Amino acid sequence: MANVVILGSTGSIGTQTLDVIRRMPDRFRVVGLAANRSVEALEGQAREWGVAHVAVADEPAAAELRRRMSGTAVEVAGGVPGLCELASMAEADVVVVAVAGAIGIAPTHAAIRSGKTIALASKEVLVAAGEETMRLAGEAGVAVLPIDSEHSALFQCLNGRAPETVEKLIITASGGPFRTLPAERFASITPEQALKHPTWTMGGLVTINSATLMNKGLELIEARWLFDVPASRIDLLVHPQSIIHSLVQFADGSVLAQLGLPDMRLPIQVALTHPERVETHLPRLDLAQTADLTFEPVDYARFPAPRVALAALGAGGTMPAVMNAANEEAVALFLERRIQYTGIMDTVQAVMNLHSPCAATLEAVLESDGWARRAARSAGGA
Amino acid sequence: MANVVILGSTGSIGTQTLDVIRRMPDRFRVVGLAANRSVEALEGQAREWGVAHVAVADEPAAAELRRRMSGTAVEVAGGVPGLCELASMAEADVVVVAVAGAIGIAPTHAAIRSGKTIALASKEVLVAAGEETMRLAGEAGVAVLPIDSEHSALFQCLNGRAPETVEKLIITASGGPFRTLPAERFASITPEQALKHPTWTMGGLVTINSATLMNKGLELIEARWLFDVPASRIDLLVHPQSIIHSLVQFADGSVLAQLGLPDMRLPIQVALTHPERVETHLPRLDLAQTADLTFEPVDYARFPAPRVALAALGAGGTMPAVMNAANEEAVALFLERRIQYTGIMDTVQAVMNLHSPCAATLEAVLESDGWARRAARSAGGA
Repeated sequence: MANVVILGSTGSIGTQTLDVIRRMPDRFRVVGLAANRSVEALEGQAREWGVAHVAVADEPAAAELRRRMSGTAVEVAGGVPGLCELASMAEADVVVVAVAGAIGIAPTHAAIRSGKTIALASKEVLVAAGEETMRLAGEAGVAVLPIDSEHSALFQCLNGRAPETVEKLIITASGGPFRTLPAERFASITPEQALKHPTWTMGGLVTINSATLMNKGLELIEARWLFDVPASRIDLLVHPQSIIHSLVQFADGSVLAQLGLPDMRLPIQVALTHPERVETHLPRLDLAQTADLTFEPVDYARFPAPRVALAALGAGGTMPAVMNAANEEAVALFLERRIQYTGIMDTVQAVMNLHSPCAATLEAVLESDGWARRAARSAGGA
Repeated sequence: MANVVILGSTGSIGTQTLDVIRRMPDRFRVVGLAANRSVEALEGQAREWGVAHVAVADEPAAAELRRRMSGTAVEVAGGVPGLCELASMAEADVVVVAVAGAIGIAPTHAAIRSGKTIALASKEVLVAAGEETMRLAGEAGVAVLPIDSEHSALFQCLNGRAPETVEKLIITASGGPFRTLPAERFASITPEQALKHPTWTMGGLVTINSATLMNKGLELIEARWLFDVPASRIDLLVHPQSIIHSLVQFADGSVLAQLGLPDMRLPIQVALTHPERVETHLPRLDLAQTADLTFEPVDYARFPAPRVALAALGAGGTMPAVMNAANEEAVALFLERRIQYTGIMDTVQAVMNLHSPCAATLEAVLESDGWARRAARSAGGA
């Protein structure tokens, strides 16, 4: 029986994590839940799961939840310190990190320092603080298990094999809605067009990142730290059917791939039950009934984002945090119709050009994140 | 440095094994070579590799080689006892078993009893004597590593995971040259048509087995013993491009696949270097430049062979040996234009109907093999 804390329990990954755990009551007990500010949903979860410890990142929302739950034994912690406290609570064995944004970094580090196994969905933890996070995990002897589909695929293909055995990590990309759109029409892409994702249903930022392939840029950075493989040995491959979730090419040329239907509950379960494999009721992939699997190279002329991400990784220090924050603001500016679609990457690059990276301490990351957002708003004409 | 004995060194797998070893002189030393009767080729290999111990299964051929190599220090053993002696020689660490036919069984068992790691290409060892072979290997604590592409793929996907974690082993099949041929035209298939294989270049028996899908039937039986997974959890999947060499579906529904170009040197190297991954100069798979990957179910009405093989496995004992021997004779009868293409499986089934299986001791297997060949000749009108 493993005791689980879920940071970001009211979001998409959080609720799917609870779905997975619900099917395995003999294996997992939920001992802590945290949300950013979704007080009502968090209250419902705390009551359903009989959880005594919850945390809310937003302080006024934490106060509101304390009022709602007064008279119960539930303790409500507030702010990032509250999340850190929850993530390092003595009872916890596994901490699922699924909060959006850089606020996930400090609680993840707190959990690692307390020896918890980390099941990681928050991109920012590795994008903005990957080197430090993995260094801490190495020191603490703690496993960092990925719970997005691409990194879970790589993790499953590697299955503990050493980084030296890897010739290439190959991350697949659906290619997004503009895979076949001619270059000259990119400037006039509207938010409505960009918000239609061919395979997955996701939020606005994630959907736009999937259209620009910035999601793949972020995944490259994450993979670099998660698997200790240099960026020069990580490739992207467009695979519109999204059946092969990623591949590993080993030193001898042999390639392993992980395949599945697009369902986040599978990578969540793989992380939670690792190294075991537990029977699920998830629908099975039937290749004989599946569309042909096709592959094509990424066209970096139309999709520059992954190379921008690589450049940020190469610059090091706080640059990936700046890139990520600038991208989030630029996407928001695009969705607000303040900049063109192609302006998203122009804005990111303009902000990166203004930044001199320094060592990615937590403080520096948070400060750079804030600065980059202001700089993006300013560069984007806001 | 591992000392290697190769049984069947003058055949296709044997010479490719030597190709692989030639590139890794710091890792492997060839200490023994054996062939069925290719005396000249074996002599050349023995001289090139400076091997002091060779064996020839055919006794007159062994005598001929002794004459040719008199005056050298090379010892030439003869017959199956000679192969057994070579396979269990004190210096050997790894024995590559790549001889054709049931004569591979006794030397494999001798090698296992002497604690050698087995790299296994000979189908008959597992088809005719799989249960016994794996029981012996378990007792001796010896690894049996597959060196054909499908089982190597399964082996790589499993990577030591327990049979209980497997929901399905999925063996891929190119589908052969008659994948799209209407059922009513099967009876008139000629040897010339059947000998054209779409992907691999192979010998006559293997090519016909690939056309009838009997090769997949044999692979089902081998996989059952090699991976200790019941036949009910082994499936076939037609995949004409032969890029995915096989797949494992785990209990949680996650699927791992091994991919590569069709080159036997890769599975040979994987077996020899296991558990390491060693850099090779083999051409790399480039999925972005590869044809679309397609999949379809096996049509067992046109391709009954895998189900016949499953029935033989279900009957147990000597039945798989009988099926395999009857099939080899039936294929020969077809190539001699003595029976129709569809007569191959009719003959196999007729022979199986005449056989009451008994326990698959080595003696019983060899006896059943001989009986089945005579019965097939007789059933085939010879």
